[in-house]
Amino acid sequence: MSIVVVGSVAFDSLETPAGKREQALGGSANYFSLSASFFSDVKLCAVVGSDFPESHVELLRSKGIDTTGLQRKSDGKTFHWKGRYGTDLNEAQTLGTDLNVFADFDPQLPASYVDARTVFLANIDPDLQRRVLAQVKSPRLVGMDSMNLWINIKRDSLIQTLNMVDVLFLNETESRLLSGEHNIVKAAKGVQALSKRPLTLVIKRGEHGALLFHPEHPIAFMPAFALEDVYDPTGAGDTFAGGCIGALDRALSRGRRIDDATWRQALLTGTVMASFVVEQFSFDRMLTLTGEEIMVRAGALKRMTTVEAIVDLR
Amino acid sequence: MSIVVVGSVAFDSLETPAGKREQALGGSANYFSLSASFFSDVKLCAVVGSDFPESHVELLRSKGIDTTGLQRKSDGKTFHWKGRYGTDLNEAQTLGTDLNVFADFDPQLPASYVDARTVFLANIDPDLQRRVLAQVKSPRLVGMDSMNLWINIKRDSLIQTLNMVDVLFLNETESRLLSGEHNIVKAAKGVQALSKRPLTLVIKRGEHGALLFHPEHPIAFMPAFALEDVYDPTGAGDTFAGGCIGALDRALSRGRRIDDATWRQALLTGTVMASFVVEQFSFDRMLTLTGEEIMVRAGALKRMTTVEAIVDLR
Repeated sequence: MSIVVVGSVAFDSLETPAGKREQALGGSANYFSLSASFFSDVKLCAVVGSDFPESHVELLRSKGIDTTGLQRKSDGKTFHWKGRYGTDLNEAQTLGTDLNVFADFDPQLPASYVDARTVFLANIDPDLQRRVLAQVKSPRLVGMDSMNLWINIKRDSLIQTLNMVDVLFLNETESRLLSGEHNIVKAAKGVQALSKRPLTLVIKRGEHGALLFHPEHPIAFMPAFALEDVYDPTGAGDTFAGGCIGALDRALSRGRRIDDATWRQALLTGTVMASFVVEQFSFDRMLTLTGEEIMVRAGALKRMTTVEAIVDLR
Repeated sequence: MSIVVVGSVAFDSLETPAGKREQALGGSANYFSLSASFFSDVKLCAVVGSDFPESHVELLRSKGIDTTGLQRKSDGKTFHWKGRYGTDLNEAQTLGTDLNVFADFDPQLPASYVDARTVFLANIDPDLQRRVLAQVKSPRLVGMDSMNLWINIKRDSLIQTLNMVDVLFLNETESRLLSGEHNIVKAAKGVQALSKRPLTLVIKRGEHGALLFHPEHPIAFMPAFALEDVYDPTGAGDTFAGGCIGALDRALSRGRRIDDATWRQALLTGTVMASFVVEQFSFDRMLTLTGEEIMVRAGALKRMTTVEAIVDLR
């Protein structure tokens, strides 16, 4: 009973206005796992090449992350992403993507993974996302991420996966692309209408926060935590998802229903986790972060949007 | 005891993705007054030309707005702004600005204005802003707006005015220009440091909401109300300021201190008023709006950002 995540484990070479880093550890499953591990048990499914350091696998294990499902291919190299951010940290410019062993990734869940309570399908080919999901017996909660590439070249497959998930994470541009609507509320409704099931949609807006559209509850909004220094936005979206899904799974593990209050708590938790990861390069900040720090910042973020009473015009 | 506002009353000819309007009534003082009139008594100081319809003056009066300070110049035309908005409604493209009688505006407050409790200096030449302020005996609260033009050509004068006000409204671009900082938190601190007095700064981000930086309280954030249809963003900033200042003056009129809770209520109120004005062209929506509608939407916006409890990691 835990969270199974499938996604990428990668090397990132990147440049931001604050500096450069070659071959930093990255990848959606890495960021998601490290974030979610603060809230629940995480089981990782991904693939790496012969160049991947054993020390990093140990690091994940030291955070309580189950790496039984981490495949190591001796005949190839690890996925490598190269990118750059300008002053506007909201959009990365991709300079190169070497899929390497990730190109032939065939995710296989170990027997110890198939009873997972929660599944997170990070941003990979939607065909693979369904192949993973088919291996889990009866998950209580399934989350999914995607990207422009799959919306453009595998739209039908993406929608097939969408029909099997409870919550979808997209950024603003992706939600517009998938729905064909510019206005964010219309885009959200358009995306929700693509699924045969009641779909909760989280639209990420980078430094402008995130919106949660639930099929039954009112719209929820969470601003990004106001930071003076942002060093590296890489992985912010996956770290955000890790906090959201982690908080939801934690609620389930304590016998709580996922109601409106739980979703709002999850949205806040994801936002807090993202605000930490961007404060340092790669996921360095995740390695020193404490539960106490998370709770203090969650309280500060809650305070940021608190209004005691509305104006009385009666 | 009321709010004195000085600013422009204008004709706007504009085009948005939703349609066109020639010679619509506009101007900062018009938008501010109509918005603030829902919360307090407003006294308007502005100038119009011989082409300005008496029917509009009557409309303002019908909303309880004091127009004693509205000068009418028989030898000139009213200020005329022409602009266009693209799909991104956050930025207007100015196609023409005919200052007309506004070029020689010499604001003179009637005797009935000088006891005002609250003053709002809408976006006009900072020299004129101080000339108005000098005529008010002992205001409890002074608010100010400005724009790129004055930051660029009258920076010293703008800072002189800044030293006399309690709260400044700027958009994100203006706050960066005035402070020389890109990061929004650093920009806010930079602007606050320019003033000799404790300055509250409200940074408007259009559809991305507004941030309030108070010298003593924690940062407050309010998202824009999520709307499916935005017809005309003209005047949204002045309507926002009208709601903020209106709510603050209403609190003062009821003997309340302007504490953290009052500021947050004001930020929410301004956001709600702006969300209404953009729903129709010009300030048409203000003419049918009711106090009940304002309170309902204020409640919905408060709900949007409400988080009941943070995740417990103890």
